[in-house]
Amino acid sequence: MAKRKMILDLDTGIDDALAIAYAVASPDVDLIGIIGSYGNVYVEEGAKNSLKILELLGQTDVPVYVGLSHSSESDHFDRMPVSARIHGENGIGDVDLPTAKRSFESGDAIDFLINSIKQYGKDLILVPTGPLTNLDAAIKKAPEITGEIGNVTIMGGALTVPGNVTNVTEANINQDASAANRVFTSPLHLNMVGLDVTLRTLLTKQETKTWRDLNTKSGSAFADIVDYYIDAYKETSPDLNGCALHDPFAVGVAIDPSFVQMLDLNMYVTTDEKYYGRTVGDPARLSDPDTNIKVAVNADVDRYLETFMTYLTDLFSQH
Amino acid sequence: MAKRKMILDLDTGIDDALAIAYAVASPDVDLIGIIGSYGNVYVEEGAKNSLKILELLGQTDVPVYVGLSHSSESDHFDRMPVSARIHGENGIGDVDLPTAKRSFESGDAIDFLINSIKQYGKDLILVPTGPLTNLDAAIKKAPEITGEIGNVTIMGGALTVPGNVTNVTEANINQDASAANRVFTSPLHLNMVGLDVTLRTLLTKQETKTWRDLNTKSGSAFADIVDYYIDAYKETSPDLNGCALHDPFAVGVAIDPSFVQMLDLNMYVTTDEKYYGRTVGDPARLSDPDTNIKVAVNADVDRYLETFMTYLTDLFSQH
Repeated sequence: MAKRKMILDLDTGIDDALAIAYAVASPDVDLIGIIGSYGNVYVEEGAKNSLKILELLGQTDVPVYVGLSHSSESDHFDRMPVSARIHGENGIGDVDLPTAKRSFESGDAIDFLINSIKQYGKDLILVPTGPLTNLDAAIKKAPEITGEIGNVTIMGGALTVPGNVTNVTEANINQDASAANRVFTSPLHLNMVGLDVTLRTLLTKQETKTWRDLNTKSGSAFADIVDYYIDAYKETSPDLNGCALHDPFAVGVAIDPSFVQMLDLNMYVTTDEKYYGRTVGDPARLSDPDTNIKVAVNADVDRYLETFMTYLTDLFSQH
Repeated sequence: MAKRKMILDLDTGIDDALAIAYAVASPDVDLIGIIGSYGNVYVEEGAKNSLKILELLGQTDVPVYVGLSHSSESDHFDRMPVSARIHGENGIGDVDLPTAKRSFESGDAIDFLINSIKQYGKDLILVPTGPLTNLDAAIKKAPEITGEIGNVTIMGGALTVPGNVTNVTEANINQDASAANRVFTSPLHLNMVGLDVTLRTLLTKQETKTWRDLNTKSGSAFADIVDYYIDAYKETSPDLNGCALHDPFAVGVAIDPSFVQMLDLNMYVTTDEKYYGRTVGDPARLSDPDTNIKVAVNADVDRYLETFMTYLTDLFSQH
């Protein structure tokens, strides 16, 4: 069977770096491009990080496009101070990776996404793990893509657990709740991998030690990068005893949905100030038997973590 | 097989009246008592309504106890104006039923609940459809009951949909979020039947006409009472096209859980002012494989409504 194609839409970020590694390591998909977004970092910095991580993993043939630099609700983006605390000033745990030889693509990121959907259709998987600004812009420009793309699996939102920015808001959705609301209420079918499950997939220094012990460039670098993240989690979420694998879990579910239990629900995203960015069932469409969102609400954590470690450790042993 | 025993904890209320009718009509349970709570109405008025409804249905042997009159957080209760609008000034659609011949029990409602749990244990089903103030008080007085009672199924909360008081709060939980939080985080196993599913079980005037056409006292009275409720819903929730069967659905699920899809989750209830009364997954216990709450998240609405109409129409034809 031909491998399915995958595009990642990332604000790279430590767990975004792990998402790249998972996509590269998976035998089931062919990573055909990355779109940069803002969030954990500024859009250009995130795109540079993506290029560095790709090169570290020997993937010098994957194009990286610079997507939109700010929310659809505003004209600029200010990085939240907590993002530097969790991901490091440079977004990848303040680990100093060499600047990649490959540059950004000069083409438009939104056009790249639309054209890829036209080319690959149902064989294409899109995994946005940052704000939904780029996807929203693509749907606005070419509304028909909502019925053409094979699989959209986002990391974002929180249905059954509190948010991580406010009680009701998860960080990615919080960056651009208006874009998220337009995507959620569009005809697009999507899988939502939110804090409901990503807070259950935890990595510890026991796992990063496995990578460090490989004595490879990528094993050492990823061990350093993720240790930064684990230390940050120790401060911000001492209850968890590890760091959450938000973005790579979304990639895992996109490839193999059987990692999670899905709840079918029609949803919207609230944009009023008081409850900004809540991802929740839409009362007006509760009884509609046609639902467009599947929300991951339970996870086979052990099987996922085993797959994750198998894939990444094998990949890091080669580079 | 011996019928299981049921106790209802009600702030009667139109849908509470339907909950009484469902419990009386069900061939699977024996209604052994009602505890009155505050909420839709003041506690004494609710208890009086329960007695009136029981007498209307020929159930003059069911004791009604007056429970606690206000939230554990305050020293009094003020009825919300919207309650009169939805349930009528008198709580039962301003339909004038004769004062019941039977009076309240003089005994303590909390002791009645505790003693019933001691007597019937796993054969006892408790369905609170108002605030959780009474149940919280019972657990405080006799903590061991959390492991002794057979089944607790509440109508209350909202996990995957917005609340009906604020965006995050459902009305029953909103009356006493502190009590609800203590109950949710106690060792008690409970089923939560919240707005997630009750907003999907809708009744229309087509069904109340069936009851009116029976030409019986109870059929006419319930048709009048529920028509008031349907008219109120037309104003407050025009999208729904009917009235929600909140409380009788909780009774239905308590008796037959297969009416719904349940999600296992450890939860708490937020009590800070900004997000008061949110029923949501507890991040600190997300990965704990032992869960004490099952949340109804999807419903076999057609089968429930058919059962509901069969039970109630048959009951109303006899009285």
